[in-house]
Amino acid sequence: MDHQDQPDFPLPMLSLRFMACDAPYADAAAVLFGAPYDGTASFRPGSRFGPAAMRQESLGLETYSPYQDRELPEQKIRDIGDLELPMGGPGPALERIGQAVRRILSDGKKPIMLGGEHLVSLPAITACHERWPDLCVLHFDAHADLREEYLGERLSHATVMRRIWDRVGDGRIWQFGIRSGTTDEFAFARAGRVAMHPFDCDGVAAAVEQIGCRPVYLTVDLDVLDPSEFPGTGTPEPGGVTFLMLLKALLQLQGLNIIGADLVELAPHYDASGVSTAVALKLLRELMIML
Amino acid sequence: MDHQDQPDFPLPMLSLRFMACDAPYADAAAVLFGAPYDGTASFRPGSRFGPAAMRQESLGLETYSPYQDRELPEQKIRDIGDLELPMGGPGPALERIGQAVRRILSDGKKPIMLGGEHLVSLPAITACHERWPDLCVLHFDAHADLREEYLGERLSHATVMRRIWDRVGDGRIWQFGIRSGTTDEFAFARAGRVAMHPFDCDGVAAAVEQIGCRPVYLTVDLDVLDPSEFPGTGTPEPGGVTFLMLLKALLQLQGLNIIGADLVELAPHYDASGVSTAVALKLLRELMIML
Amino acid sequence: MDHQDQPDFPLPMLSLRFMACDAPYADAAAVLFGAPYDGTASFRPGSRFGPAAMRQESLGLETYSPYQDRELPEQKIRDIGDLELPMGGPGPALERIGQAVRRILSDGKKPIMLGGEHLVSLPAITACHERWPDLCVLHFDAHADLREEYLGERLSHATVMRRIWDRVGDGRIWQFGIRSGTTDEFAFARAGRVAMHPFDCDGVAAAVEQIGCRPVYLTVDLDVLDPSEFPGTGTPEPGGVTFLMLLKALLQLQGLNIIGADLVELAPHYDASGVSTAVALKLLRELMIML
Amino acid sequence: MDHQDQPDFPLPMLSLRFMACDAPYADAAAVLFGAPYDGTASFRPGSRFGPAAMRQESLGLETYSPYQDRELPEQKIRDIGDLELPMGGPGPALERIGQAVRRILSDGKKPIMLGGEHLVSLPAITACHERWPDLCVLHFDAHADLREEYLGERLSHATVMRRIWDRVGDGRIWQFGIRSGTTDEFAFARAGRVAMHPFDCDGVAAAVEQIGCRPVYLTVDLDVLDPSEFPGTGTPEPGGVTFLMLLKALLQLQGLNIIGADLVELAPHYDASGVSTAVALKLLRELMIML
Amino acid sequence: MDHQDQPDFPLPMLSLRFMACDAPYADAAAVLFGAPYDGTASFRPGSRFGPAAMRQESLGLETYSPYQDRELPEQKIRDIGDLELPMGGPGPALERIGQAVRRILSDGKKPIMLGGEHLVSLPAITACHERWPDLCVLHFDAHADLREEYLGERLSHATVMRRIWDRVGDGRIWQFGIRSGTTDEFAFARAGRVAMHPFDCDGVAAAVEQIGCRPVYLTVDLDVLDPSEFPGTGTPEPGGVTFLMLLKALLQLQGLNIIGADLVELAPHYDASGVSTAVALKLLRELMIML
Amino acid sequence: MDHQDQPDFPLPMLSLRFMACDAPYADAAAVLFGAPYDGTASFRPGSRFGPAAMRQESLGLETYSPYQDRELPEQKIRDIGDLELPMGGPGPALERIGQAVRRILSDGKKPIMLGGEHLVSLPAITACHERWPDLCVLHFDAHADLREEYLGERLSHATVMRRIWDRVGDGRIWQFGIRSGTTDEFAFARAGRVAMHPFDCDGVAAAVEQIGCRPVYLTVDLDVLDPSEFPGTGTPEPGGVTFLMLLKALLQLQGLNIIGADLVELAPHYDASGVSTAVALKLLRELMIML
Repeated sequence: MDHQDQPDFPLPMLSLRFMACDAPYADAAAVLFGAPYDGTASFRPGSRFGPAAMRQESLGLETYSPYQDRELPEQKIRDIGDLELPMGGPGPALERIGQAVRRILSDGKKPIMLGGEHLVSLPAITACHERWPDLCVLHFDAHADLREEYLGERLSHATVMRRIWDRVGDGRIWQFGIRSGTTDEFAFARAGRVAMHPFDCDGVAAAVEQIGCRPVYLTVDLDVLDPSEFPGTGTPEPGGVTFLMLLKALLQLQGLNIIGADLVELAPHYDASGVSTAVALKLLRELMIML
Repeated sequence: MDHQDQPDFPLPMLSLRFMACDAPYADAAAVLFGAPYDGTASFRPGSRFGPAAMRQESLGLETYSPYQDRELPEQKIRDIGDLELPMGGPGPALERIGQAVRRILSDGKKPIMLGGEHLVSLPAITACHERWPDLCVLHFDAHADLREEYLGERLSHATVMRRIWDRVGDGRIWQFGIRSGTTDEFAFARAGRVAMHPFDCDGVAAAVEQIGCRPVYLTVDLDVLDPSEFPGTGTPEPGGVTFLMLLKALLQLQGLNIIGADLVELAPHYDASGVSTAVALKLLRELMIML
Repeated sequence: MDHQDQPDFPLPMLSLRFMACDAPYADAAAVLFGAPYDGTASFRPGSRFGPAAMRQESLGLETYSPYQDRELPEQKIRDIGDLELPMGGPGPALERIGQAVRRILSDGKKPIMLGGEHLVSLPAITACHERWPDLCVLHFDAHADLREEYLGERLSHATVMRRIWDRVGDGRIWQFGIRSGTTDEFAFARAGRVAMHPFDCDGVAAAVEQIGCRPVYLTVDLDVLDPSEFPGTGTPEPGGVTFLMLLKALLQLQGLNIIGADLVELAPHYDASGVSTAVALKLLRELMIML
Repeated sequence: MDHQDQPDFPLPMLSLRFMACDAPYADAAAVLFGAPYDGTASFRPGSRFGPAAMRQESLGLETYSPYQDRELPEQKIRDIGDLELPMGGPGPALERIGQAVRRILSDGKKPIMLGGEHLVSLPAITACHERWPDLCVLHFDAHADLREEYLGERLSHATVMRRIWDRVGDGRIWQFGIRSGTTDEFAFARAGRVAMHPFDCDGVAAAVEQIGCRPVYLTVDLDVLDPSEFPGTGTPEPGGVTFLMLLKALLQLQGLNIIGADLVELAPHYDASGVSTAVALKLLRELMIML
Repeated sequence: MDHQDQPDFPLPMLSLRFMACDAPYADAAAVLFGAPYDGTASFRPGSRFGPAAMRQESLGLETYSPYQDRELPEQKIRDIGDLELPMGGPGPALERIGQAVRRILSDGKKPIMLGGEHLVSLPAITACHERWPDLCVLHFDAHADLREEYLGERLSHATVMRRIWDRVGDGRIWQFGIRSGTTDEFAFARAGRVAMHPFDCDGVAAAVEQIGCRPVYLTVDLDVLDPSEFPGTGTPEPGGVTFLMLLKALLQLQGLNIIGADLVELAPHYDASGVSTAVALKLLRELMIML
Repeated sequence: MDHQDQPDFPLPMLSLRFMACDAPYADAAAVLFGAPYDGTASFRPGSRFGPAAMRQESLGLETYSPYQDRELPEQKIRDIGDLELPMGGPGPALERIGQAVRRILSDGKKPIMLGGEHLVSLPAITACHERWPDLCVLHFDAHADLREEYLGERLSHATVMRRIWDRVGDGRIWQFGIRSGTTDEFAFARAGRVAMHPFDCDGVAAAVEQIGCRPVYLTVDLDVLDPSEFPGTGTPEPGGVTFLMLLKALLQLQGLNIIGADLVELAPHYDASGVSTAVALKLLRELMIML
């Protein structure tokens, strides 16, 4: 029960916020928020519905993780809800996301963002990079997202990592699980601009070592998971990693200095069973405990 | 945007509460809350998911009603969220609902409750009846709900109006749209214990006249609607009234002294199109404007 | 509880048969059975799943009809389950259906058949026609089903009424609700071979008068209903009749000598809400009370 | 079978084009095409999937209309498929739609467009207005779409009729079925800038008389239909018109000089039963016969 | 065909009972029955629909197992259908289940029960424990179900194994696949009250050895399976075991003296593809062959 | 864009054909076509909808394969669409498929066929066998399909491999992934008439060696995949192979002289998430690159 939200009503109510994320804003070490934008989705839209589905279903989640043998920290995270974002061209939405992340950072807190399509990571990472010029980016995804442009647009879910590379430059991006893209994108990676580990999460330990104590932003496009475990996404790509493989990879990041993170591309309407949302929630819980 | 909920964060956020229902509790003339209990559902459960679906989808609703040519009143209603209710036997859940309604009434506000199965109306009406011994009950439903007991239980969605009759007595209940029940239930009504108007909403105007200025509780089991317009319910009964017929009937209640109301039995999982939730939302908007 | 089915077990069990249709075969005045064949469905198959869905969902139905103010007769009807029918070409399935109906008739009982696709009516009506050469056929449907052949086949859901006409001849078929067909089919009807009442159920009273005391077989293709009320069918045709219109038409048949009947073309997989099955069940209940 | 498409293969194939719309382009009097853009959809996207669903399902449609007692004209319409349109900001998509309509008009043919969201009507009507400065617009819709801007954007599905008014001016737009909008939109209509007929299709005959022989563009937002008959749309609004009411209204337009038309806002993913697509198809057939 | 059920009708009918489970009750070595109760389900109800779905879909199952190279035994198992159980508080339902199991045991037969929620195992195991005081319990599940109480209730799907521990005591319960619970539940297990094997089925061979020839009740909460293979359950937990891992574990039990078993928590409405039901059926077939 | 299809219209259009398969027929080395027949499906029909779903969704597929590091060949494959096939008895449909494959072969091209049910492979393989009497058949499937007859029929999805064995004889068929069938079918295989590798794809390398340079027809019943990865099929069988296992097996066939291939039994309606179609598409892409 979220007493701060219902100060005048004495009965136990179901929380309106993400499970266990009702720290007062001032006290919170991390801030959870949704960025429900999917305006450039070219195949199947619907990731705009991701944050609300996760918040709603979070009531069924346990706070204890048997994987880490730890509880979600109490009174450390604040769910501030979802940004109000216009659809259509991405400009206004991205600007507002950037403002939000800058504000969270300037308040000395870590941003944890729920997409939305992958393009929402661009303003978040840009804001982090402004603050930490040596920022490293860890990227889990089925798609390389390294196109120079897509259908004539430079701002798209299919170009987002290229735009981030424009900012952070060579050797700052590590990609895992990639199994779909153009010949050009794979060539770009092979040319060493980014460290692409195709198909699975092998190489995470090596990446952790290479990164050392530099600040890291973690962006997880949930379609890195196999569609059997995560059908609720716009562009499912068979041949992905399992939940347990991804969880293991994330837990390997424990020593890193992660200064922000996102989970994107849950499109719950494409999975009537609710299993995709359950997978996203469990990954988020593990991430929040780990951070 | 719900500034009260995010006092420290300056960006526009999507409301966590029902659209336009973010008056401070102290200022609110009416209090909206969910009672997500469906433990005695005998056919298809799932009305527990009704309040959350309505809150979530309310963001797409206009505040203006062309039917009444009026806006939802600003800063008059407070959505306090959903009560935390255990499943299983109905005792504890009903008790908590009763406490909530009593509190709202003693704070001088009108309760508007979203079910949940129809049994949740029992403690709400009981609490109102304690305060207004001459309480009248207007009941829209496909089912008579007048059984003395159901599968050996006296507390059930199928007995709720009989239990309410136990409290308010003969001649205090008006029923509309009824088209399913046992021979005994129809005989009970024909014996004049309740005023049952089967199949449609004819007779509403007469009922309004009979009631006069006595206090009224309005309980709408949404399965009174035809399943073509409202498939998302546990026990759909073909041959029901249309949205426009029900809306017209509700608008005829405008002169009454309605002291509380509920909408129950939306089970959104049975309507993947979301249309049932849209119907419930529009009825709720019209009701909130009318009250 | 179906004591005949569980003679050795003393606890109350849910019936395995259609609600209230567990008369011993020898005592039954009518026999209910399913004919789950949909092998010639050209657009969307799935009516093979109709009988099982109806049996399963029948447990939620009341035995009392407020429309007729009567109960389902006790110990008068026997549900013998579903015929085992091969898919593929229709020959073997139709032969088996014919055998079943002949047997039921020779046992002095009325057949009530649940389809399956409309073609299953052909052997049933043929068997009845063998016994009653002056048989009349009442046909409710969205489709004329009067083609001479369809995709090169003479036996098809789209030719079934033409094949029946081959047997019963001119002036013996009354059609209601028809709103889809070829120019040729409508011309065939206009030439007076069958009495076609397009779009709605007007003309039922006149047909009842024309038929008088002659024996009648009633075949209801449920797609005569508007898809808003009955989406669960293979070939939905907008602009159909409502449940209440169809119910009223059926109740007008009360004085007729109905010697057999069927309800066909429920394809429950196309209606996840279950509403179509509920509609079919209620029509069947009214029909069984009326017979 | 579309011999033009498979000139070298001798067997009968299912058409890849809309049923019976395979006239050679040069011979066609009308050109059917899809505009699968839904980038500004603010509530539920998915109308981008409308044209493909209609083409696919069209194979089950009869070419004969019992309402008009006529066949679809042979070799008069060409389905050229769907435009390739980028998502994101609407600029590039609208420009391309405008080019297509201009080309069709300059080839002396009538455009028939399948949306996509309602915003796709803007470039189509603009192109027609360039050619016929006295163009009238008939608009069937649940929503007024008359906002000056929406979430800061001037180009949106919620502003499209206002943008069209910007071009055609006062007294050139007739609206039917409107039942949702802001106080401002209804005031704009009451001020006489457009002729708004709320809730139903009354007034169509009068509009036909007022328009006389002026050129007319017909735009049908399918959400004008009641969600019980048409759940497959992004923003369902209860209380709409029935298929038969809309069909009757469209058939009243027969004497008009309709120079172009569109059907928009079918979002088939929200209607798993396929009924919404069937409704859209039948309306399109009647429209194509009527033109 | 189930001749016993249709003694008077000579045609082949589809069985109304579970495939190949139509032995006369008197002859049966095992009795299959459903316990369709889900009244305490706290997250998503619907396991009440499990037994009917399994019975219905069993018609598509082969009787031969290539895993064991054996056929389902003929005339050895009787499906007596589903118990009639009230929803609401669990008391009456559990009592009736207990009566049924006691009767089956006293008739010298093995009970095989299909849930329903996991709480239905409590009266079954209690009845077996009354007869075999040295009863051991093998438990496959995603959840520990070891809470002392849940939302104030001592009888709940979340407390069922604790209630069973109350009866059978320390060292009698082996748990496999557990991956969700509270800190307290895991501590309870670590304290040695039960033998909990988290995450997977390792340790089954050792458990078999420890149990020896003592009587065993096997309870399989099907949510032990990964949601990718078994989405149709109320509380899906990512990171589960595969069908093949669970099958292998079950086949390792072959030497044990299993005196009763259940499969619980199939909620088929959450898996429209039917795959979850297919998984449950195959496990049941293997179990029935093995017993 | 398929310029051949729209010679007179200058704007970029979405292809009406399978992605990148718009070579002129005369130039094509391979011909892709659909065989949408599912008339003998005994459990759940719907594979008739497979080819259209694959064509529709192919627009979202990349042309580059990271598994083979190659692009789909340009201007080498022609999608000629789907054969027009009647439902009902299989005779006419199979004859037409045979004609199509003979024509494609006589034009010197390779047939690639999309089912439909598995029975469509029979006329395709028969036509190939007429041309190459030493034809070998590679068969991936969950089911042996080796029955002599099924429900009295010799032509059925359950007998197709037996009928093919009738033609090609002993030692010419290799089966992988088989995990369902009768005792007789497994005995037939054990007797050495076919080389059956149950459960998985082990043994592919050995088969490749045994086949050598003989001509090979590859038939993939997609239900060989585990239902977690491929729920969209009529008869899902748990315990199947993964996409990656099947892909690896297919890539092992690279040196073979494959003269024709098919993918059958995608029934997309049973997988609302679209993941099954995505799996089928990716396998088809890899196959088309490999051929």
